[in-house]
This record gives sequence, structure tokens and C-alpha cells, in this order.
Amino acid sequence: MFAEIITIGDEILIGQIVDTNSAHISKELNKIGVQVYQITSIQDDKEHILQALEDAKNRVDLVLVTGGLGPTRDDITKQCFIEFFDDDYVENEQVLQHIKELFLKYFNKEPLPSNLLQAQVPSKATILFNSYGTAPGMWMEKDDTVFVAMPGVPYEMKYLLKDSVLPKIIKNFNRPHIYHKTLLTYGMGESDIAHRISDWEENLPQHIKLSYLPALGRVRLRLSSKGADEQKLRNEVDGQMEIVHKMLSDIAVGFEGETSITQKIGELLIQQNKTLSLVESFTGGALAQEITRYAGASAFYRGGIIPYATELKISILGVSDELIKKHSVVSLPVAESMAERGSKIFQSDYSIATTGIAGPTKGDGDDEIGTVCIAIAAPNGVISEKFLFGKVRERVIQKSVSKAFEMLLKEISKN
Amino acid sequence: MFAEIITIGDEILIGQIVDTNSAHISKELNKIGVQVYQITSIQDDKEHILQALEDAKNRVDLVLVTGGLGPTRDDITKQCFIEFFDDDYVENEQVLQHIKELFLKYFNKEPLPSNLLQAQVPSKATILFNSYGTAPGMWMEKDDTVFVAMPGVPYEMKYLLKDSVLPKIIKNFNRPHIYHKTLLTYGMGESDIAHRISDWEENLPQHIKLSYLPALGRVRLRLSSKGADEQKLRNEVDGQMEIVHKMLSDIAVGFEGETSITQKIGELLIQQNKTLSLVESFTGGALAQEITRYAGASAFYRGGIIPYATELKISILGVSDELIKKHSVVSLPVAESMAERGSKIFQSDYSIATTGIAGPTKGDGDDEIGTVCIAIAAPNGVISEKFLFGKVRERVIQKSVSKAFEMLLKEISKN
Repeated sequence: MFAEIITIGDEILIGQIVDTNSAHISKELNKIGVQVYQITSIQDDKEHILQALEDAKNRVDLVLVTGGLGPTRDDITKQCFIEFFDDDYVENEQVLQHIKELFLKYFNKEPLPSNLLQAQVPSKATILFNSYGTAPGMWMEKDDTVFVAMPGVPYEMKYLLKDSVLPKIIKNFNRPHIYHKTLLTYGMGESDIAHRISDWEENLPQHIKLSYLPALGRVRLRLSSKGADEQKLRNEVDGQMEIVHKMLSDIAVGFEGETSITQKIGELLIQQNKTLSLVESFTGGALAQEITRYAGASAFYRGGIIPYATELKISILGVSDELIKKHSVVSLPVAESMAERGSKIFQSDYSIATTGIAGPTKGDGDDEIGTVCIAIAAPNGVISEKFLFGKVRERVIQKSVSKAFEMLLKEISKN
Repeated sequence: MFAEIITIGDEILIGQIVDTNSAHISKELNKIGVQVYQITSIQDDKEHILQALEDAKNRVDLVLVTGGLGPTRDDITKQCFIEFFDDDYVENEQVLQHIKELFLKYFNKEPLPSNLLQAQVPSKATILFNSYGTAPGMWMEKDDTVFVAMPGVPYEMKYLLKDSVLPKIIKNFNRPHIYHKTLLTYGMGESDIAHRISDWEENLPQHIKLSYLPALGRVRLRLSSKGADEQKLRNEVDGQMEIVHKMLSDIAVGFEGETSITQKIGELLIQQNKTLSLVESFTGGALAQEITRYAGASAFYRGGIIPYATELKISILGVSDELIKKHSVVSLPVAESMAERGSKIFQSDYSIATTGIAGPTKGDGDDEIGTVCIAIAAPNGVISEKFLFGKVRERVIQKSVSKAFEMLLKEISKN
């Protein structure tokens, strides 16, 4: 069984937005055994939409369409469905009531005529109720292919998918099981990893596929397989993963989904009943955002300080003026002092401190752009390292975030 | 002239990564007058890649392919190009030297045989030098369609595109001009906006297209047009934009690209010689990240504090214990006190403070999940507002970030 995702919207084709919907839909489909064969993004153009629907019909069993269901004139997906399915509009009473209620509750007013038009739907469609917005989803069939239209607003789409679309797919299709497992590694390049595990890779069963996903400072290794017997599938993939995990134990930090490096840090801290604070200079909140992305951070995360201006490192943090003058603001002694002061001020067991020059211009010192110092204050002392992370602002920050968590995890894991 | 982007990689089709490459490429192509007709994402599968190349050849003049050029076995794009163009491998001496130099410089070692294989390229290809990685780009032609292969690692792709691919496209193709201009608005829904500007929209010239891009708490309005005479194009679109900008002056904050709300805040603060600090509780660094995303923030951004644990609001910030007990930690008086303390500690003219319950579980107080208080301390006093932003952690944080900057901009704009 194969699916195609069609995302509609000029904003995608001109690069004004990044299409995150298709990644979300793909992930959810995989979980229920539906393999995505292709993702196609096209403009709000009638001829092109009709052509894409026709092409997809010949390729796959299930077509999920997002976008173009809004109340404004540039939204033409519903009209294209009417034409593609040779259908007419009917008014859906439930959708009409829902629109009126939403407007009353959230805006305390009557909907506009353009909003009420959203209750006009193709007569042949099964309507999928959208609790979070005014545009309903639609489920239609043509020549054994199912077409589902969903709004493009990500959170509306997500709820509609979860509450209506996925359950209906599960009910209507026979699906195999798809199983992925991804090992997270830090600190070694993909070709070195491939070299180290090449004998194992060569002997992998045909039906288990290995993929390498390199990113800044880390490589993810994914094993994927598909089959009728879920337990057998899991046993096989998990078994192979166990072997490769052992071969890479020095650089592996766990498995994706089950854990991320920040989640692993959180788990260990909670386990050890320890706390964390963050003192971020040039990373400006990037570490904090990663830590607070997950609910439950409040169990171990005390808080953080972002002394962006150099003088604040002195006035708020209490780093000594002389230390900065002697070593420069981007130096190991200053990073260490920042981390120690962080631990003290926030009464935390661990504290990460970052100081560096992300670019594109030089900072208050003489240091080269891309120079980064990271320190970790731990119960048994403070450690620090200096790096040169290139000239691209975004990369310097991202690499520093990766490295800081890698250093912290190492320290915590010692206990 | 039309282009298609083909992104190759199982990781895209299973939703393990979000494809950001195609948005970047689309945006850059638009700037040089190349319209992207379709974006197609497919798996690392030979038959499918060959089919997609063939389909694209029949649709467009230019096909940009990313992904599958790495040194590991799952990378098969180059092999598919050899087959599609009925070609053979030759060794490229310049690429070979570059690979050796990269390994010596960054890893201080010899490349592995798998890395050296990256110097084997299709004989008919024009090689596009990749300064930032080992996989070169390739430019090939078949039946009047140009095919370009680039690595999938985003920063390698970006530099290759900028340094080699775009200049070669400019040289080889006759292109019209494409012009987009996007007005940023805050605080009104898309159907209300459409209602207000409907007369103007109805009378827009046929060749200028209006699109609505709704997101959390804001709507972007884009005008797009294409033509041979760039100046005429700009004059027309800018003229129409001026009209609609006036009609929406109460909710418009500027134009995309030219500015974002945080950039506008930065510009005004620099103009007025004022400074900003951030006191973020549940937003945990999200505001700081937005502010420090742009180089130059150090000219007005003093820094921030993230008192995640309630007691830190007292111990570090100096908010009074009684105030929190009396009003709850998520309350207007506490938010105001946080902002005022932030201004004081960071010696900043303005300070934003956030306190709230992002969920999914309740916090230290009795407040409903989604309750948010935002305060702005300004030179002429402190203002604050309370919101209810729903039950979805991610949305509560995102909406709060939007609202906080909206409130701050209003305050700054009073001067």
C-alpha cells in the first residue's frame, strides 16, 4: 500500500514557507504501516492541481492533500475537487453550526459570508469534522484511490489527521507494519562510521535497509524494514541495532524518539536528583529552548541567564573584570567562571556556560569569528573546551549547542 | 521558464527530517526569475529516481536535484545520473585533490577509499566545485532540459547553489523577473482582512496575484507578479501594496524580508538609543532566540534571565514572595514586577516579562493551562495583559512570543 502527499500553495513553491506538514503526515502514516511513495508540492493553479491529482491516482492507493481550503479567494482546492470528482456543492448543516459557534466563542461575533461558504462541500465527500478551524476535511474516492483534503494550517491539519483521517485509513486499508529505529551518534563522521561497521553492514539481511543521516556534529543511523508480522520485524531490527549499538558504544547516545540528547540529560538529572542552569552568551537562549522544549523540564531545570553584553557578565554574573581583561571575554577561564557563577546563583548542581563569537562581525575581543568556549560546572569541578566552528553564524550556534550537550552528558554520565 | 526541484532521501518520505532545502532553493530561484513549477520528494530508490527525472524532463526546463551524493552505500543519485544520461565514470583530479586537502586540514588524516570514490564523476557532467564538502555538484543536459545534482547537506547545498549553480543558470537561461512583496499584519483574522480590502482585491490587475498566509496571531499578505520589465513590475506591485498598506495601517508592521517584527523592534531601539532585556519564565528562551537570531542584536539587547523555577523569581529577580502568594505566580502584578526587576537588573530601557502555564500539566499555581501574562516595562511605566492561549504547549509558547513582540513594538512606537 502506497500513499502520496500533495501540498498545495504558492507560498511553498516560492520558498516563503517551509512545508512541515508533509513530514508530519509521513511520520504518522509510517506508524500505521502506510509507506509514502512521493511528496508533491504544487501551486494554487487549477490545471496543475487537477493534473497532480490524476498523476497521483495512477501511482498510489491513497492521496493526502493539504492547503487551499481557506475562506479567501486564493484558496481553490475545494473547487478542484468538485471538478475532479465531477461533483456539486451541498451545504453541510453540522459544519455551518460549528462555524457559527467558533465565531461566537472566540470572536464574539457573527461569521462573514466568506466563512459560511466553508460549509459548502462536495456532495460525494465524507466530511471530516475540524474541531480547531472552520474548513472541514473531505474524504473522496475515484477508481480505487482515496483522496483526502485537509487544511494547510499545521495545527488544524494535525488534529484532523489524528482524530479523523488516521482512524479512517486504519479501518479502510489492509496495511503491513513499517518499523524504523534510529541510533543517535555524536562526534564521528559518516564515512568513518561506515568504515567501522562495514562488515556488519555487508551482512545485513536484504529486507533491512541502513541509512546514514549526517548533520552538524552528529550522525543518525537508521534501520528500516517492512513486513506482515510486527513482532518478528521488531525483533529482527532491534537485534541488528543492538549489534551496531555495541560497535559504536563510544559515540552512541541512544535512540531517536525514545530519547534525544536533552531528554537523556533530563532523565539522568532527575534520576540523580540533580539540577541544571544555563549561562548563555552568544548562544542567546538556544540551549534553553532545547531544554524547555519538553514538558517536565521544571523537574531539573532551574533557569538561565543570558548576559549578552560583556559588562553584564561582570555586573550580573559576577565574573571578575580582571579575568576578562587578562584572558579576553572568549576564553576558557571566563567560560569556567561563568559556569561556576551560574551554579552558585541558580543553586544548581550543573551549569553550562557559553561564550563565543558567532559572527558575522567580531565581538568585544580580538578572537577570530567562530571561536567558542564552553564550560560545564559539575559537583566535582569545572571543565571547559575551546573550539573553532567556522564563519557561518547559524552553524557556529548549532554546533555549540550540540557540543555543549555532548559535554554535559559526558559529565553527568560519570556518576 | 520553469524549474522543478527533486529532493531525494528516505528520511524525507518517512518524516524523519523536514525538507528545508527546497524552500531555500525556491526562494533563490525566484530572485533570479526562475519559477518553480513543482517540488517532488522521492525515496532513495533507483527506479523511482529514474522515473522522476524522466517526468520532470517533460514538465520543465531546469531540474535541481538534492541528496544522495554522500560516501555511504545508501547514496545512489550519482549512479542514477550515470544510467539516466547513459554515461560512464571518470576521475576528476581537482575533486580528488580537494578531498585529500579537506581531510588533512580538518581531520589531520588520509581520506578513506569511500571518500576518494566521490571524485569519480559522470564523464558528460560539468563539475560544480563544492568548497564545503567532499561531494561535487554536477550539471548535465538531456533533450533541452538541464539537470543539476547537489548534495543534500543544507549548508553544502547553499554554498554550491550560490557560488556555482545560480551564476550558471543566469548565464544559460533567458529569464523574466519575478517580484513578490509581503505585508506583515498582526492581530486580525484572514477573513476579516479579506472583507475589509475586498473592493481593492476585486480590482487588482489580472497579472498581480494576492495570497493570504495565516499563522498564529498574524496574517501575511503577498502580492506576486512576473514580467519582462523589472522596474514596471516593481512600480505596479509597490503601488498596489501602498494602497493596501494604508487600508491596513492599524494592523500592519512592515514588509517581509525588508523587516520582521524583531528587526523592526531592533531598528527602532537603535534609532532611539534604547535597550532591551528579557525575563522569560515559561517561554524559556524563545524570545531571546528570536532577538539574537539577527547579527547586530548586541547594539540594543542587554541580555535576559530565565527564572524557570518559581523560587528563582524571588531569589534572583527579586520579585516579592508576598506578591506571588497573593496573586499567584501567573498574574499581572507578578509579570509587571518581573519586567520592572528585569529593567533594573539589566539596566535596560525596556524589558519584556512572561509568566504562564504552557502545559501539558499545571504549574505551581491554580491557573488553567494556557494562561499567560505578559508585561512590558517601558521608560514611562509598565503595561501588562493576560491571555488564554489553549492547551497545546507549542502553540501557547508561539502565540506568546508573537503577542509579546506585538506589545513591545506598540510601546516603542509611541515614542
